[in-house]
Amino acid sequence: MDAISYELIKKSNGCDARLGKLHTPHGVIDTPVFMPVGTQATVKAMSPDELKDLGAHIILSNTYHLYMRPGEKLVKKSGGLHKFMNWDRAILTDSGGFQVFSLSNLRDIKEEGVTFKSHIDGSKHFISPEKAIEIQNDLGADIIMCFDECLPYPVEHDYASSSLNRTIRWAVRCKETHKDTERQSLFGIIQGGMFKDLRERSAKEMVALDFPGYSIGGLSIGEPKPIMYDVLDWTVHLLPDNKPRYLMGVGSPDCLIEGAIRGVDMFDCVLPTRIARNGTVFTSQGKLVVRNAEYAEDLRPMDTECDCYACRNYSRAYIRHLFKAKEILGARLTTIHNLHFLIKLMEKIRQAIKDDNLLKLRDEFYAKYGYNRDEI
Amino acid sequence: MDAISYELIKKSNGCDARLGKLHTPHGVIDTPVFMPVGTQATVKAMSPDELKDLGAHIILSNTYHLYMRPGEKLVKKSGGLHKFMNWDRAILTDSGGFQVFSLSNLRDIKEEGVTFKSHIDGSKHFISPEKAIEIQNDLGADIIMCFDECLPYPVEHDYASSSLNRTIRWAVRCKETHKDTERQSLFGIIQGGMFKDLRERSAKEMVALDFPGYSIGGLSIGEPKPIMYDVLDWTVHLLPDNKPRYLMGVGSPDCLIEGAIRGVDMFDCVLPTRIARNGTVFTSQGKLVVRNAEYAEDLRPMDTECDCYACRNYSRAYIRHLFKAKEILGARLTTIHNLHFLIKLMEKIRQAIKDDNLLKLRDEFYAKYGYNRDEI
Repeated sequence: MDAISYELIKKSNGCDARLGKLHTPHGVIDTPVFMPVGTQATVKAMSPDELKDLGAHIILSNTYHLYMRPGEKLVKKSGGLHKFMNWDRAILTDSGGFQVFSLSNLRDIKEEGVTFKSHIDGSKHFISPEKAIEIQNDLGADIIMCFDECLPYPVEHDYASSSLNRTIRWAVRCKETHKDTERQSLFGIIQGGMFKDLRERSAKEMVALDFPGYSIGGLSIGEPKPIMYDVLDWTVHLLPDNKPRYLMGVGSPDCLIEGAIRGVDMFDCVLPTRIARNGTVFTSQGKLVVRNAEYAEDLRPMDTECDCYACRNYSRAYIRHLFKAKEILGARLTTIHNLHFLIKLMEKIRQAIKDDNLLKLRDEFYAKYGYNRDEI
Repeated sequence: MDAISYELIKKSNGCDARLGKLHTPHGVIDTPVFMPVGTQATVKAMSPDELKDLGAHIILSNTYHLYMRPGEKLVKKSGGLHKFMNWDRAILTDSGGFQVFSLSNLRDIKEEGVTFKSHIDGSKHFISPEKAIEIQNDLGADIIMCFDECLPYPVEHDYASSSLNRTIRWAVRCKETHKDTERQSLFGIIQGGMFKDLRERSAKEMVALDFPGYSIGGLSIGEPKPIMYDVLDWTVHLLPDNKPRYLMGVGSPDCLIEGAIRGVDMFDCVLPTRIARNGTVFTSQGKLVVRNAEYAEDLRPMDTECDCYACRNYSRAYIRHLFKAKEILGARLTTIHNLHFLIKLMEKIRQAIKDDNLLKLRDEFYAKYGYNRDEI
């Protein structure tokens, strides 16, 4: 039996949203779910206990970064990523593909794999589909990803098509390499840029390979949101009902709602933690840049409707002071708040699916939060 | 009645150590006690809840820093420092004197007070004894300090003597300025450099002013430790038994033991939190620089005899990884550990006073930890 399984609880009336449970070796996760990102084996500024208190049941970590530092062999020697970072709930790792293509320098893409230089020290590395799986096997996450090429936007159809073909061949090699499917589940990744024919081909080929879950990659990379939603609409319908669907790298509040409406089960994004460290927070009334001078004497909490630890105990004035004084607690409090905001939003989305009123929740959210005000 | 009172529980046999309780408007504190430093209204890298979990019952905050940023008026408007920073246990503030003399530029010392330039933006400021008390009244700590001049080391006897005379006159003005003695207790500060006659004169004059507690300032500023211990020996005997004694700015493990042996009740120092952020930790076997390459694959906890959150859950290899990757959790874990180490050391010191074997504890500590290995 595969390490993870997806249990479909309810399909929404009125949209494609669905309620489910993702069973993993490290716990059961209610879906749709937002996964906080712990790039370097830590969700920035947070402790595992704080993540649990917020209600996080699964986090993501990045293979490229852990391969570079501290190295997957040390993680393996430590008893795997769960033990290394003291997180006993579920973990998903990406394949490293996205970072190889976006972060590293001087990459050379061949059928065999990709040669590239480290963004840290310029050292030369080679990652193949086999290597990406071996690294992820050493890390030991519950859910792992095929090695793929994430296309830039915009891109020519010709290149997108040949890249997709290679990504499909790489997926076959990943599947062949990954042996211990009872410990870790390997997801296939749908690519194909913003081209409908390629997305369809990608979905068809990946589904034929019968993965325990499917990721939708290559979105939220600069394209207008209506295009992203179109691609989602084409793609999700081609995926089987009995497998989880993971929209990679997407995590702004509006996209979480829109993604859930289209039948996505899993999301991840560095957005909430990254903007938090810059002093920007989500609130029920839209974004708020708490480090701005206008909040210097504002004794209200960041979000007057929020019951997170930061909003229960601290004023905007205090948190702004922490940022101006470069105090670590500032980033801790805004990070707690932003993750709380998204985790609560997912709870509301799940409740709305139960109640068959997710579209109403979207309208109310936009009316209050503002449409697209989360763009950074 | 004064805001705070000192209850002497037991005097040690064999040395001058004493066990006591410090009663404050925000709780009772077992002494001798180490006070973590929250310079800018936050103990760096820590949350108030974590401090409480460690057993901290009193922290120190710095008047100079809070006056500069965010300003004492905002703190007052927020309901005082306790509310502003969400700390409902006791707080002590210094007078700002130490920072005015050590941090600021172009200071001009006159009888009336000190003119100086901000270390942040170069803006010009004037602090008098009256102003130092007014700022501390606005901050609202349980224990506040007289404005004094902290002499450098070494210094000529002539200058030390005239400086001390001014510090004594300033103490009189501070006492006259501070009205609400039931809300905040004002401590007098013993100065006088490393000169026995001056320390004696200082102690005599301060005791004559009948403060609810006495601070010993101007130590641990570069002088050899035997000299510091000599000054302590001369000074503490001149202080009354029924008032608490606070040795300012001292917090290395050996100095905590030596200070307690000489009858000191309260200590503070940035050392544990500052070295933590540089990747250095106290351990039962002496200091350990966890960010060093030799710990890259060391799966043991930082201190194999420690039961703090960091040592229960994380390896040296993981914490070193966090430091190399510049992750906030690294500084959090080392800070938790170092504060835990000192708070536990104070518990051991109090137990040893009860058991009349503090000198034995000192010998055992030096044998295992190493003498003076805490010098940074």
